[in-house]
Amino acid sequence: MRALPAIPEFAEGIRQGDRVLLGRAITLVESTNAAHQALADALLTALQAFAPANDTFRVGITGSPGVGKSTFIETLGTNLTAQGHKVAVLAVDPSSRVSHGSILGDKTRMEQLSVDPLAFIRPSPAGETLGGIARKTRETIALVEAAGYHTVLVETVGVGQSETAVHRMVDAFVLLLLPGAGDDLQGIKRGIVEMADLLVVNKSDGDRVRLANQARAHYLNALHLFPAKESGWTPRVLACSATEKSGLAEVWQALVEFQTHTRSNGFFAENRRRQAHYWFQDALEQALRTAFYSHPEVKARLQAMEKDVLSGTVSPFAAARSLMDALLKG
Amino acid sequence: MRALPAIPEFAEGIRQGDRVLLGRAITLVESTNAAHQALADALLTALQAFAPANDTFRVGITGSPGVGKSTFIETLGTNLTAQGHKVAVLAVDPSSRVSHGSILGDKTRMEQLSVDPLAFIRPSPAGETLGGIARKTRETIALVEAAGYHTVLVETVGVGQSETAVHRMVDAFVLLLLPGAGDDLQGIKRGIVEMADLLVVNKSDGDRVRLANQARAHYLNALHLFPAKESGWTPRVLACSATEKSGLAEVWQALVEFQTHTRSNGFFAENRRRQAHYWFQDALEQALRTAFYSHPEVKARLQAMEKDVLSGTVSPFAAARSLMDALLKG
Repeated sequence: MRALPAIPEFAEGIRQGDRVLLGRAITLVESTNAAHQALADALLTALQAFAPANDTFRVGITGSPGVGKSTFIETLGTNLTAQGHKVAVLAVDPSSRVSHGSILGDKTRMEQLSVDPLAFIRPSPAGETLGGIARKTRETIALVEAAGYHTVLVETVGVGQSETAVHRMVDAFVLLLLPGAGDDLQGIKRGIVEMADLLVVNKSDGDRVRLANQARAHYLNALHLFPAKESGWTPRVLACSATEKSGLAEVWQALVEFQTHTRSNGFFAENRRRQAHYWFQDALEQALRTAFYSHPEVKARLQAMEKDVLSGTVSPFAAARSLMDALLKG
Repeated sequence: MRALPAIPEFAEGIRQGDRVLLGRAITLVESTNAAHQALADALLTALQAFAPANDTFRVGITGSPGVGKSTFIETLGTNLTAQGHKVAVLAVDPSSRVSHGSILGDKTRMEQLSVDPLAFIRPSPAGETLGGIARKTRETIALVEAAGYHTVLVETVGVGQSETAVHRMVDAFVLLLLPGAGDDLQGIKRGIVEMADLLVVNKSDGDRVRLANQARAHYLNALHLFPAKESGWTPRVLACSATEKSGLAEVWQALVEFQTHTRSNGFFAENRRRQAHYWFQDALEQALRTAFYSHPEVKARLQAMEKDVLSGTVSPFAAARSLMDALLKG
């Protein structure tokens, strides 16, 4: 790695929009090395990257594999850059540690956006746990916003729990769906439908327009069964075709209206405060576990104690309490 | 509370099947008072309650509200006690802190079983978190087994995450379903269907027999789409009517075959070892969080730090790391 600039120059370079420095800063954030983390902390502080950035907008985008998330982001993103928006595209994909970056890793999937000077695309960080991956993505949002990318799109795979993690770092959540009402709620967990502020039936083109309309009607009905959102926003169901570039303006218009609605009733700011609180708690408990398991006395006692637990000599609960007591007295 | 007997007598009384002492022991386990917990630990150790109890069988039972879980447990339980089995019925219901024991709380729901001398019924412990409730239930299993209840049925509400917690403390997992194929997977999360070793369509009686058979066929088909189980067991789909007391013998027969299968291939014991390991880790991390948040220095710093995090002066991640550093140096 080339030598890094001193923190003030580093921060200034990022603020000026230097993409190479931004990339290197994200690499620092993603590193598990303690010295890199300290540098990343200093940089984020210098950038005041976590100060309330009320002029930015963070959108989570999810949907089952095959629903066309990349094409949707490519089309939406190029529409936005054409209007002069700076757009960052990030991803949270816990499966990428196996498949080495299955989403956004292959930038050719977003041919136009990946060479667009107003767009910045970063694949999912690798990591051992979804929690770790999500924390790094949250820090990366702060960095790209400091670099002037005021619209941040966060892609997530439509399976497992990454949606919940992404929901906790965005202002609006978009669920992409396939045409065909028969295909309905089964592939997608009800909890994910409940999180969505906007449902978009993609691939509404050619022969599929009728099916897409059926799906829209189906989801509109299904939404009535869900409890009202705390944001006071009524989720909408739209249809679009990302490949034919139709319906995307309406998608963005709905997101703009969502912003207006939640900013004016105070939910936008309140939600961000809660999210900051959540990430603080989350980071704290992660730091606590790391400190605990790397503590020499814990390391020394833990193995013997686990053996006792597995042989049944001691209850797992008594073992945990006695280990904690010993540490606190020590 | 009347004075408790000394630990040796207490343990001996439970081993002899004294139901009053067993009830008082469970109350100790459920208490959040540190002295009660220390007594419970000593009692569990004296009982060797966590030693491998290979002659016991733990069955989790779940299903949507209205599927007839109580009647199913009542009928299955009385069948078993009629054969001389001692049966304990426990419950995990995180909603009970609101509704004050919604499942099993009303013992009249199991009229026969609640007065059966071979049965012991205990409602869900109250608690602030699902984790806490589940830990207490896991300790209660150890107590009832020590008191000679070799069959333990653990009921869980068919919503939310309590199924996963119960799945981690049982040998076999039964999912109850309603007749009617149209009612299919939508109400029940796919992950819960995947956990089940046995699916039972209840209320298969009168006009509903045909619908129940449709549902059976539907679920048999759906199961083909799921990955093979690590236990090597192929989940079965049965039908029964708990109110008409039909089909319950086949349900128990399938569970006996499940036991034979998993005991002979070693999965039964391996699964219990993994579960003991899981509960140790879980208890450890809970004890760690409790110790951390009640630490005076943490209490003192945390509030100021949270304010900085919420105002954006410091990143949540940097704040967490610096708090941990300060503690470890101190």
